[in-house]
Amino acid sequence: MTLLITGGTVIGPTGATPADVLVDGETIAAVYAPGTGPSDTETLDATGKYVIPGGIDAHTHMELPFGGTFASDTFDTGTRAAAFGGTTTIIDFAVQRTGEVVQDGLAAWHAKADGNCHVDYAFHMILGGVDDDSLKAMDQLVSDEGITSFKLFMAYPGVFYSDDGQILRAMQKARDNGAVIMMHAENGIAIDVLVQQALARGETDPIHHGLTRPEALEAEATHRAIMLAEVAQDCPLYIVHLSASRALAEVAAARDAGRNVFAETCPQYLYLTLEDQLGAPGFEGAKWVCSTPLRSKHESHQRDLWQGLRSNDLAVVSTDHCPFCFKDQKELGVGDFSKIPNGIGGVEHRVDLLYQGVVDGKLSLQRWVETIATTPARMFGLYPRKGVIQPGSDADIVLYDPNGRTRISVETHHMNMDHSAYEGYEIAGKVDTVISRGEVIVSEGAYHGRAGRGKYLPRGLSTYLV
Amino acid sequence: MTLLITGGTVIGPTGATPADVLVDGETIAAVYAPGTGPSDTETLDATGKYVIPGGIDAHTHMELPFGGTFASDTFDTGTRAAAFGGTTTIIDFAVQRTGEVVQDGLAAWHAKADGNCHVDYAFHMILGGVDDDSLKAMDQLVSDEGITSFKLFMAYPGVFYSDDGQILRAMQKARDNGAVIMMHAENGIAIDVLVQQALARGETDPIHHGLTRPEALEAEATHRAIMLAEVAQDCPLYIVHLSASRALAEVAAARDAGRNVFAETCPQYLYLTLEDQLGAPGFEGAKWVCSTPLRSKHESHQRDLWQGLRSNDLAVVSTDHCPFCFKDQKELGVGDFSKIPNGIGGVEHRVDLLYQGVVDGKLSLQRWVETIATTPARMFGLYPRKGVIQPGSDADIVLYDPNGRTRISVETHHMNMDHSAYEGYEIAGKVDTVISRGEVIVSEGAYHGRAGRGKYLPRGLSTYLV
Amino acid sequence: MTLLITGGTVIGPTGATPADVLVDGETIAAVYAPGTGPSDTETLDATGKYVIPGGIDAHTHMELPFGGTFASDTFDTGTRAAAFGGTTTIIDFAVQRTGEVVQDGLAAWHAKADGNCHVDYAFHMILGGVDDDSLKAMDQLVSDEGITSFKLFMAYPGVFYSDDGQILRAMQKARDNGAVIMMHAENGIAIDVLVQQALARGETDPIHHGLTRPEALEAEATHRAIMLAEVAQDCPLYIVHLSASRALAEVAAARDAGRNVFAETCPQYLYLTLEDQLGAPGFEGAKWVCSTPLRSKHESHQRDLWQGLRSNDLAVVSTDHCPFCFKDQKELGVGDFSKIPNGIGGVEHRVDLLYQGVVDGKLSLQRWVETIATTPARMFGLYPRKGVIQPGSDADIVLYDPNGRTRISVETHHMNMDHSAYEGYEIAGKVDTVISRGEVIVSEGAYHGRAGRGKYLPRGLSTYLV
Amino acid sequence: MTLLITGGTVIGPTGATPADVLVDGETIAAVYAPGTGPSDTETLDATGKYVIPGGIDAHTHMELPFGGTFASDTFDTGTRAAAFGGTTTIIDFAVQRTGEVVQDGLAAWHAKADGNCHVDYAFHMILGGVDDDSLKAMDQLVSDEGITSFKLFMAYPGVFYSDDGQILRAMQKARDNGAVIMMHAENGIAIDVLVQQALARGETDPIHHGLTRPEALEAEATHRAIMLAEVAQDCPLYIVHLSASRALAEVAAARDAGRNVFAETCPQYLYLTLEDQLGAPGFEGAKWVCSTPLRSKHESHQRDLWQGLRSNDLAVVSTDHCPFCFKDQKELGVGDFSKIPNGIGGVEHRVDLLYQGVVDGKLSLQRWVETIATTPARMFGLYPRKGVIQPGSDADIVLYDPNGRTRISVETHHMNMDHSAYEGYEIAGKVDTVISRGEVIVSEGAYHGRAGRGKYLPRGLSTYLV
Repeated sequence: MTLLITGGTVIGPTGATPADVLVDGETIAAVYAPGTGPSDTETLDATGKYVIPGGIDAHTHMELPFGGTFASDTFDTGTRAAAFGGTTTIIDFAVQRTGEVVQDGLAAWHAKADGNCHVDYAFHMILGGVDDDSLKAMDQLVSDEGITSFKLFMAYPGVFYSDDGQILRAMQKARDNGAVIMMHAENGIAIDVLVQQALARGETDPIHHGLTRPEALEAEATHRAIMLAEVAQDCPLYIVHLSASRALAEVAAARDAGRNVFAETCPQYLYLTLEDQLGAPGFEGAKWVCSTPLRSKHESHQRDLWQGLRSNDLAVVSTDHCPFCFKDQKELGVGDFSKIPNGIGGVEHRVDLLYQGVVDGKLSLQRWVETIATTPARMFGLYPRKGVIQPGSDADIVLYDPNGRTRISVETHHMNMDHSAYEGYEIAGKVDTVISRGEVIVSEGAYHGRAGRGKYLPRGLSTYLV
Repeated sequence: MTLLITGGTVIGPTGATPADVLVDGETIAAVYAPGTGPSDTETLDATGKYVIPGGIDAHTHMELPFGGTFASDTFDTGTRAAAFGGTTTIIDFAVQRTGEVVQDGLAAWHAKADGNCHVDYAFHMILGGVDDDSLKAMDQLVSDEGITSFKLFMAYPGVFYSDDGQILRAMQKARDNGAVIMMHAENGIAIDVLVQQALARGETDPIHHGLTRPEALEAEATHRAIMLAEVAQDCPLYIVHLSASRALAEVAAARDAGRNVFAETCPQYLYLTLEDQLGAPGFEGAKWVCSTPLRSKHESHQRDLWQGLRSNDLAVVSTDHCPFCFKDQKELGVGDFSKIPNGIGGVEHRVDLLYQGVVDGKLSLQRWVETIATTPARMFGLYPRKGVIQPGSDADIVLYDPNGRTRISVETHHMNMDHSAYEGYEIAGKVDTVISRGEVIVSEGAYHGRAGRGKYLPRGLSTYLV
Repeated sequence: MTLLITGGTVIGPTGATPADVLVDGETIAAVYAPGTGPSDTETLDATGKYVIPGGIDAHTHMELPFGGTFASDTFDTGTRAAAFGGTTTIIDFAVQRTGEVVQDGLAAWHAKADGNCHVDYAFHMILGGVDDDSLKAMDQLVSDEGITSFKLFMAYPGVFYSDDGQILRAMQKARDNGAVIMMHAENGIAIDVLVQQALARGETDPIHHGLTRPEALEAEATHRAIMLAEVAQDCPLYIVHLSASRALAEVAAARDAGRNVFAETCPQYLYLTLEDQLGAPGFEGAKWVCSTPLRSKHESHQRDLWQGLRSNDLAVVSTDHCPFCFKDQKELGVGDFSKIPNGIGGVEHRVDLLYQGVVDGKLSLQRWVETIATTPARMFGLYPRKGVIQPGSDADIVLYDPNGRTRISVETHHMNMDHSAYEGYEIAGKVDTVISRGEVIVSEGAYHGRAGRGKYLPRGLSTYLV
Repeated sequence: MTLLITGGTVIGPTGATPADVLVDGETIAAVYAPGTGPSDTETLDATGKYVIPGGIDAHTHMELPFGGTFASDTFDTGTRAAAFGGTTTIIDFAVQRTGEVVQDGLAAWHAKADGNCHVDYAFHMILGGVDDDSLKAMDQLVSDEGITSFKLFMAYPGVFYSDDGQILRAMQKARDNGAVIMMHAENGIAIDVLVQQALARGETDPIHHGLTRPEALEAEATHRAIMLAEVAQDCPLYIVHLSASRALAEVAAARDAGRNVFAETCPQYLYLTLEDQLGAPGFEGAKWVCSTPLRSKHESHQRDLWQGLRSNDLAVVSTDHCPFCFKDQKELGVGDFSKIPNGIGGVEHRVDLLYQGVVDGKLSLQRWVETIATTPARMFGLYPRKGVIQPGSDADIVLYDPNGRTRISVETHHMNMDHSAYEGYEIAGKVDTVISRGEVIVSEGAYHGRAGRGKYLPRGLSTYLV
């Protein structure tokens, strides 16, 4: 079964070129100069459309247990929403909690995902308890399980927190086995002091979630992670959900020095702010409680983050998709912001929100594709299977319509959330058709896929290191 | 006439993938998954080889009049040598000298090149006299002549030198018409003082060429150019032949700040040093007199330049190919280093010398291709015609043999020089086959091309700007 | 004739201490613990007052010929006004214009000042034409004339401008003879382009004086001067009238690297802004035309300059006193801002304006004294004769009343100006008594000195270098 | 009883001046121009000598319990040795260990010192357990006990270590009550991992003490302390025993940004190295085990530290005097470097070792006095009682002979140590006479003081903050 995508403009990380793409089964078989492909095959007309590799969201948390509840998207609902938004691969996080066996955590996440995913998926592993056993498990996951990235937390003492000694040991292990260390970089020990002090002063509204997580404590932790990675002989380090200018400056400095230090940001940090969203009247702001928090619009964070995307000091845009419904979930924190489950849902909107940056002149078409698809694939060992349109790669392809329009709303989204973080946003572009391993799963707004068609992707080592 | 290149590994800027490439006439017609291309065509077996886009050397000076003589390679000899080395496009510099009409300079260079080139060629324009007329000419060259980059000199007072007011005006013009300003960034006014002082002290040997051009004066000029480009509202700026750590730091800082500032380095700065080459006994060092000069091996320049290539603070590797024979040409400066014609020949060896960096673990395969081909094409408005292997692009393709070996020597090189700057260097790789617009011009060490087959390439605006 | 100053608090650069000061003739004879001085001498009650060394204004331009007119204060009127304001030493600038003999310029300035000054005075030398003769003259001035600092201009092409080669040569000479190079750091070549372009667009109002001298061109020139001084083997460099954050950052970076780089700022940059003063309606802004220009209030310049004073990245506060009357003088530039004589008068108000910084919590008492008196003395070879209250020093002493108030106004000032740059400013302190070489010249608002009592001060080498 | 010191050159932080100093009882009564003091008093001839304020060593550990033993100098032997070396004030550290009451710790240290000191002394307080009680105690010590500085440790987990939350709380408290936080800035959690790994590899020699405490972990902790102090709204922060270039760069950056961040270094970091001392053959290196450790001579630490002293990024030189005998004490760590008591003795040699820097052209006379006496007094609330020669100050005066010579050796030193860290060092200068509160306690090499004459100095708040 073959399909020839004709008339479109293929966008890759180095530029745009008109080309026709032949899909044969699950993979791309050939790329042709326009009009020169085989004539004896089914065709899909991409005239006027951008033909891009399917999006890769390298940071999602489906069904994550957190704060006494669970992220509201299952692997079923979440990956279906992802598909609608042009994302054909997610990398979710399996979790080892303190005291648990790493492999048990991985097995639990496989159990959640297996048979339920609409698009392909892979796992990073969260290490909630670095010790001799979990260090040994890292080797096993890298060599046998296709897990080549491990996330640690400098925040959340008592939950996911690792101390600097644990971090150093995990980094040394990663340095040896080739894995990437992903870091939630906030000084959680100091934050907890600020949180307790705020609550003691009666400052309980959602905005205090942001005010008790100042930029300085993100920048500090980012610097510390970079220094520990240096002590671990330049262990590859990937800072997740970077939100603040000074944290970005730490990453940039490390990169100027030739270090294997990378970072992602998320759409929420590019569009939403402490004052306008987190500081919404009453308890409304709870919708935007996430960590790292939204930052002040009176500072230059958003300008700097877009700039970081252009300069590649920010290599990747992920969503940190971690949805909670307002009712019953976010509401757990009424009267105490520290009890609000942390997370924003966005897996469905990343491709669109970043395309809006192209329209706004903040990002080139090439960088759009590179940050949402190509670099995540290279960073996390999925390239060239994913993230690129070339023969031999999986036929994960999105036709994106630059003349379409997308309005984001809880009324129309497919995520399992009772609100949207981007309610009412208008995007000057539109996901037109989504192909996952050769199968058209979204077209003309309709869904043609099914739960269970998505496959687990064991990953290789990063091919993005310098 | 079609040709299918089979069995090779295509290297692009984001990674490697096995693929077969179909050439039809002068262009690439299709890229196939291995073994799936048409069977009714001539084939070229690339098994075990890297299939890369033909090299683009964005900085050459064929037949340049300089210091009372001429660069010893003509467009004929120089482009033939380039072809042997896997470079299928050069961008040379047409020259307007003070008092001359810009278009006359361009016409003169067309006359030199026309009918003589073995590979495709384009021109940057050197402005030796920025005034109302030449500013007007800039617009005309951009719109009509396919010249979209203009080089200015902060060095060489009385020859090519522009003062800061002229630079600013040219930058403003470039900002408006979309061109890129290329800058020779050395403080020539201060250097001339040091040169005169050295000569007055009787310091006449070649090494004093380097000692009178200290790093500080390259870093200073680099900073100044960056600031002037800022005043010109972020005019795109490309620093040529960057040689020194502190100049690189200035570029890195500008890039961290989101500026359209770029830089190239050259193989000589990656391999050769002030002490070992320029300081060779007697007058021998004259072979390595070039500006910017070779830098001290006791400092970290080479380490930092390789690092800059990895981090993309150095975007391009060009050669600044400007060959002079030792006899009669370099010898003009016996007894007075300031009379030695400035320049090193290397157009033939760039692809090899950079590949050696891959072998040495200093550069990834992807960055090798990106810095020698893809980025030059994007930077200077030749993409996607050049610099990439994809349907529709010119079939400029090199098969590179990672198992071959290349020994560089005046005995075997094809440049019109009586010595080699890299005499005796051994490269752990080898240019196997060179295809230029579909024609195999080098294979099995033999040359099959001819003068005049290379075409002039009018260029578009840069697609590399942020 | 002796005088015992009793009951006051002596403020020095390291702190405050109650002490009595015995003046014997022109010098300080002793400092006593309170109440322990001799009882057989005249006393001056300083109870409740600060006893500080007389102010040293290291940057004035009395009677400077500029823009077709002369600075409106003579040495007579200007030094009398200085005395009223607590400044007992000025260092003015003798001028060599291009083509003139350095010593002739010095003689001309001696002729202007001799017999006319109310307080002591010294000279820096402006070199308007660096060549073999003027370089030789530098040595002579250092060894014979007590002139140990030389000012160069990177601005004002055709007037005072030195090119980078001239600057380098003068710096090398200073490096050898121990002098300090003072630098007006603005890229005048580029500024002149912007000025001509603005005028061509019909932008003739005073504010365009500021808009055509952007911060980037001050920062650029500051960096360039620092680099040239490095090439001159760390020639001591003193940046005059630093006005902008990024110029300050260049100075700070050089100082972090251990360089002999220093800078002064002026009260106008600490209090006045581009928008509020230079942008005053109509031609009013001409009062505040000076170079470097006032900077935008929408940027952080003033905050950063106060911070620089605290951190000692700004070592000195001078006035760059260069007064012009509005009528007939400033009015020369009606319809063409480039014809407005550059300069602000402030020699009378520096001590007060900086004290206001103490009141506002921006500066410690110690730094107040250090920046207005002690460091200028050390920087320019007048220490310990001036700038400190200790035995053996000249008895230049100010009693400053922290409970007094001073209102600045053209109605009350003593400078020869028909307006005040600080009209209406209220200072929460007051110059109470001024003693110059043992003579009370100002007390109770009355003047007791006379023209001609001020002596020329030949200076030694700086004792402030690291 | 009065004493007139005649004929000397008084050195203060801004320069040198010839002056005679009258001591009356315990204080300085007056400073006179040379030869003008009273004739009816005993005189001390200081001709040819520098007259400087007595040294203040702001970092000593007499009798400190550490690693199962005690620092070998008592307050008796240690302060007597200090006196011999020209130090007339020490600030030692009282210790609260985890679980102890702060005031009990203070009382214990008073008990050790009371009646035993030869020169005046004060205390900082080490907080080994920040909690509600010790925070309250901070206020009481500031207001009632003359303790205005508190030291925390980011190293030594389980001994003195505070976590980031404790540090933040203590900083907030200091911010409110005006105290200074002193910080041992090394990431002890990460260091302990490296130590355990080294020991597990059988790397037990003293040099591994240094190799397991890499510069990166000092720089990291320094940055973290600076950031936490920022979160505590610019709590004053003083980094102790700074040893490494990159830690210094962090301090310099904070100071450029106007922060109340200060640092001291110690003579051992200015003269001794990892390779030459800590890496001495066999167990010999144990003599130089201290934390922060000696740094590599192959890096630029010593050059940078001297530079930091010149630029005031390093404000103070203390000794971190913490002596242990080789026999029985250092030997506790034979076969396990982690068991070697940490510390070097040097209280006797600081004034000399820094004077050698003056002789070597690395420091000015003024900065010598400022870093060893004036700034410590200002920093820690002893000014103007100590640190300066002016009426009303304590008559703590050293006559220093620039023509003398001092040879450092265990044979001649007065510290209770069986070896010298500086054995055989020759200083081109000599402590000639030491006066403590008006009493000549050292002259002509003989000691005239006695235990118990030194008084406890309750301190005020720092007067050094910006």
